[in-house]
Amino acid sequence: MSIEKMIAEHPDVGPAYNPALGLAVKHAMYCAAICNSCADACVAEPMDMNRCIRLCLDCSDVCEATCRVASRRTDHNRQLIRTMLAACIEACEICEAECATHDNPHCRRCAQMCSECARDCRAALVSLNEEVHESA
Amino acid sequence: MSIEKMIAEHPDVGPAYNPALGLAVKHAMYCAAICNSCADACVAEPMDMNRCIRLCLDCSDVCEATCRVASRRTDHNRQLIRTMLAACIEACEICEAECATHDNPHCRRCAQMCSECARDCRAALVSLNEEVHESA
Amino acid sequence: MSIEKMIAEHPDVGPAYNPALGLAVKHAMYCAAICNSCADACVAEPMDMNRCIRLCLDCSDVCEATCRVASRRTDHNRQLIRTMLAACIEACEICEAECATHDNPHCRRCAQMCSECARDCRAALVSLNEEVHESA
Amino acid sequence: MSIEKMIAEHPDVGPAYNPALGLAVKHAMYCAAICNSCADACVAEPMDMNRCIRLCLDCSDVCEATCRVASRRTDHNRQLIRTMLAACIEACEICEAECATHDNPHCRRCAQMCSECARDCRAALVSLNEEVHESA
Repeated sequence: MSIEKMIAEHPDVGPAYNPALGLAVKHAMYCAAICNSCADACVAEPMDMNRCIRLCLDCSDVCEATCRVASRRTDHNRQLIRTMLAACIEACEICEAECATHDNPHCRRCAQMCSECARDCRAALVSLNEEVHESA
Repeated sequence: MSIEKMIAEHPDVGPAYNPALGLAVKHAMYCAAICNSCADACVAEPMDMNRCIRLCLDCSDVCEATCRVASRRTDHNRQLIRTMLAACIEACEICEAECATHDNPHCRRCAQMCSECARDCRAALVSLNEEVHESA
Repeated sequence: MSIEKMIAEHPDVGPAYNPALGLAVKHAMYCAAICNSCADACVAEPMDMNRCIRLCLDCSDVCEATCRVASRRTDHNRQLIRTMLAACIEACEICEAECATHDNPHCRRCAQMCSECARDCRAALVSLNEEVHESA
Repeated sequence: MSIEKMIAEHPDVGPAYNPALGLAVKHAMYCAAICNSCADACVAEPMDMNRCIRLCLDCSDVCEATCRVASRRTDHNRQLIRTMLAACIEACEICEAECATHDNPHCRRCAQMCSECARDCRAALVSLNEEVHESA
């Protein structure tokens, strides 16, 4: 099942569908779930993971809001989509930097996910800046 | 990137990983995003979609909470996971029944997603009832 | 600022406004924020609070979904509102029981909040059962 | 029940409690619920409220994430709190401008709430910039 195809089926989208933005929405959705799961796994680790738990929960919240805002195509709110993509990049970079310091499988996976999400949000920002018509 | 593998990497899970529950988590995550997007697409439709908008938003909220609660593996909260899986089945069935009455691509996709999510939550409920050891 | 007055101003509500349901919405909103904050405070405690963190996060998620679903008045979805009120009562009772075992101010406050939220959700369930007309 | 007192009871806060940030958290919580309810009320209005529905849903999502991130006090993530406060101000200003054009009680209340939330987020940003010690 694909959130990207779903967005493309919005009655106002049609040929104006922005695949870079669709990919960012999908990966923000994944990243919200992965970070939420990583926070939970960090709670169960025997060592002090307090900072990692906090940053994963923050990143999950920002990714979730970004996914929801950036998936909407009724009318438009591109200024806020841009702002949230930028916030999501920042949240992902902060979380990735912390998870990368921990040698366990869930933090490695979470760091990788945050890296991919940040990369796709950057590409979506570029694509929004290149859009000529009011169609996002 | 896989939320199911992420859950399997939780330090307390190991061989006790429940694939049916992992699949329900993944599809509740998708269904939350798809229903949120369908509500937005319904807002942009020219005909009266009020009931569909409301049911899609409700289903999105319940799926999101179910995904988050059912993905946690620290200690356990199986009673609440069961309750939320049942609530998610109900929300999906109600939303699917409404979306199935509308002839447009996003409602068809949303109805299909709700159907799959409800089916996977039912399978996850069965698998939780079959678990003998306290490991969820 | 009052979420209860906001709901009363929905164009379809009018004299059919259900104050018990409004109160449950308000307290589910508070309880979602209080439980989210308690989970964060528990992470910073020096002793093992793993179970409390998990139950607070779960309760926050269920309260948030309940608040959102139960605040909507377009068309109706009373079956799901009832189900979510019942899920919220369960989540609050589980979280309250755990927080009540910890002697610190945030867990005491969280237990109190969960108790009030569960009580108000129970009253809202009673009020929904007493409604004669299709107006929720 | 007070989310502000809850935050003040976090084990790492003590005298470093920032009341301006606490107030922003509380009003972002309210604004998330009010905007979610206004979107629902707008769906039920007889005239075209599509743009208002979309902006209210976006504002609700950003306020919710801001409330959750800005309420955490374990370790610190002040850079992201600042970013989300700024995003919340933007979301509220956009939503307020739209709601202010509609002559109905729920949009008037929502515009007022957005205005207060933006004001309190601005004050919280100032207070964070004035903090000398690493205590947020």
